[in-house]
Amino acid sequence: MSELRKNFLNGNWVIISSERAKRPKDFKPQVEERAGSLNCPFCPGNEKQTPPEEYAIRNDNSQPDTSGWQIRVFPNKFPALNYEVSSVYFSKPFLSELYPGVGKHEVIVETPEHDTDLKNLGEDDFLSIIQTYLLRYRNALYLPAVKYVSLFRNYKREGGASLEHSHSQVLTLPFLPPQIELELRNIREYQQTNNHSLFTDYIEQELKEGCRIIHKGEQFLVLSPFAPRFPFETWVMPLRHFSGFSQINEDEIIELSYILKKTLKALSTLGDPAYNYYFHSLEGDIDFRFHIEILPRMAKPAGFEWDTGVFINYTVPEEAAEYFRVNF
Amino acid sequence: MSELRKNFLNGNWVIISSERAKRPKDFKPQVEERAGSLNCPFCPGNEKQTPPEEYAIRNDNSQPDTSGWQIRVFPNKFPALNYEVSSVYFSKPFLSELYPGVGKHEVIVETPEHDTDLKNLGEDDFLSIIQTYLLRYRNALYLPAVKYVSLFRNYKREGGASLEHSHSQVLTLPFLPPQIELELRNIREYQQTNNHSLFTDYIEQELKEGCRIIHKGEQFLVLSPFAPRFPFETWVMPLRHFSGFSQINEDEIIELSYILKKTLKALSTLGDPAYNYYFHSLEGDIDFRFHIEILPRMAKPAGFEWDTGVFINYTVPEEAAEYFRVNF
Repeated sequence: MSELRKNFLNGNWVIISSERAKRPKDFKPQVEERAGSLNCPFCPGNEKQTPPEEYAIRNDNSQPDTSGWQIRVFPNKFPALNYEVSSVYFSKPFLSELYPGVGKHEVIVETPEHDTDLKNLGEDDFLSIIQTYLLRYRNALYLPAVKYVSLFRNYKREGGASLEHSHSQVLTLPFLPPQIELELRNIREYQQTNNHSLFTDYIEQELKEGCRIIHKGEQFLVLSPFAPRFPFETWVMPLRHFSGFSQINEDEIIELSYILKKTLKALSTLGDPAYNYYFHSLEGDIDFRFHIEILPRMAKPAGFEWDTGVFINYTVPEEAAEYFRVNF
Repeated sequence: MSELRKNFLNGNWVIISSERAKRPKDFKPQVEERAGSLNCPFCPGNEKQTPPEEYAIRNDNSQPDTSGWQIRVFPNKFPALNYEVSSVYFSKPFLSELYPGVGKHEVIVETPEHDTDLKNLGEDDFLSIIQTYLLRYRNALYLPAVKYVSLFRNYKREGGASLEHSHSQVLTLPFLPPQIELELRNIREYQQTNNHSLFTDYIEQELKEGCRIIHKGEQFLVLSPFAPRFPFETWVMPLRHFSGFSQINEDEIIELSYILKKTLKALSTLGDPAYNYYFHSLEGDIDFRFHIEILPRMAKPAGFEWDTGVFINYTVPEEAAEYFRVNF
């Protein structure tokens, strides 16, 4: 059972998870090992090492939890949050908010091939992946007590991936998370001051200036944000205004799969860096705009960043955009 | 020349620094190499490889920028911010705040010995280091246009240190950073609602509960925060209320050097992990309370954390405190 705890001072919410509880001995230095497909729980033939699958794209004759799949979805074996009912009540420490963790945490394995990374899959595969993302995102939206669905991908150990086999994750929250609340506050303040939509004005301005645009498709923009936290940080944003991923249409799905593949390919020319991406998405709030934020992890937030919330970035975003335009 | 840029959506401030501008070719995969003392710019004999020193604790006969020092302070060769005057004006993009970076960035090398980490220095050395911290912090406070002084240490490459020779850094900002503003808002809200000081009540509660206290000295508490972002995150907080590091007294300096050494020693029993620490300090605000936050970097914030601002922590802080109490 997990706990959701809020820090009295910095407002951070923290999931304290006892599902994969780490004890001091777990932190002795580890030799990083490449698991290979034999011991990989995400590889075909090892389906019994994961919880039973909840969805898969499979060959016609294959049975659930056996090989024969292209994409496979199952609950995270070590969920940060779950729906297990517990009769334990926690004392509420003074100054601190705490309640039992409730939510769903699942894994989307994007390819059966252990040594093939997402960016090297074909265009049809990418389309299936985005469609699977959408299906699982929508499924999570309607679970009990879900206020936010986080759909994200961590690439490489440097990017926080604990297994090297290509995968993404879905994790729900029973409240609007602080990052989204902060952004909504900024969006509302702008609307009140300017009587205009923040995102609409932002995109108009970026299109006018042009220097941070990487690619303009029919439905999506790829751009370097004006104040990127990380070198080569990249956002993918729809030209049509909609707040949540669930509202994406068929044409947009097709272009998004093409554009996301191209963006990841361009990023990999920088020495195939670790990265995180997440679908920044909020249903039912007309002022928010769905978009994807891709954070390459070539630099590390360190003491100064944690102290201040100010990021140091040694790469000028206009130069990053120029590099990506050439390599897109 | 650097720029300070604010992101319209998430409110992040970013320092775009062209002093150590990284171009795409700089991001090809690097083989991590251990520099050794021969090529280390922080080692005795290599003083000419750094900007001229601004302060040092030296043997009586030794000259500035030569060997013979115990602690040496000089401007960062690749400052995130500096005071160079420039006549360049930047266009102010719509929705975005931007102004020329102004500030000071310096390096405090804590020992001449390349292979000796901070935690292995003697108690007298630690006292000199804290005294040097204080001197440089106070010096930075009175520089032009300084609204905040960040004093921080990054340990190991995993913790963002670009050189392995033991060092800390001071970096000033011309505004109150977002993290501090957020905390001040929480402090004020608590004060208004409860007519009590947040920090006073917090410490009273932690002392009463006891389970997160690692060490209680005469002047300082060492504790695991209730909602730690990282496994084994540890805070060092004075029992006397004062807001800024500059207000520390002689007795407190002595105990702080002892306690910080003990805390780092205890942390190192977990496989000598990378960490960041920073002196969280604000002058002239009576509601804030000076303290040190130590963030071990055994886990990585990844896609979910960046998406939501919620952290997943697989270590229960009460268990971390218990471990540290035994190993303190």
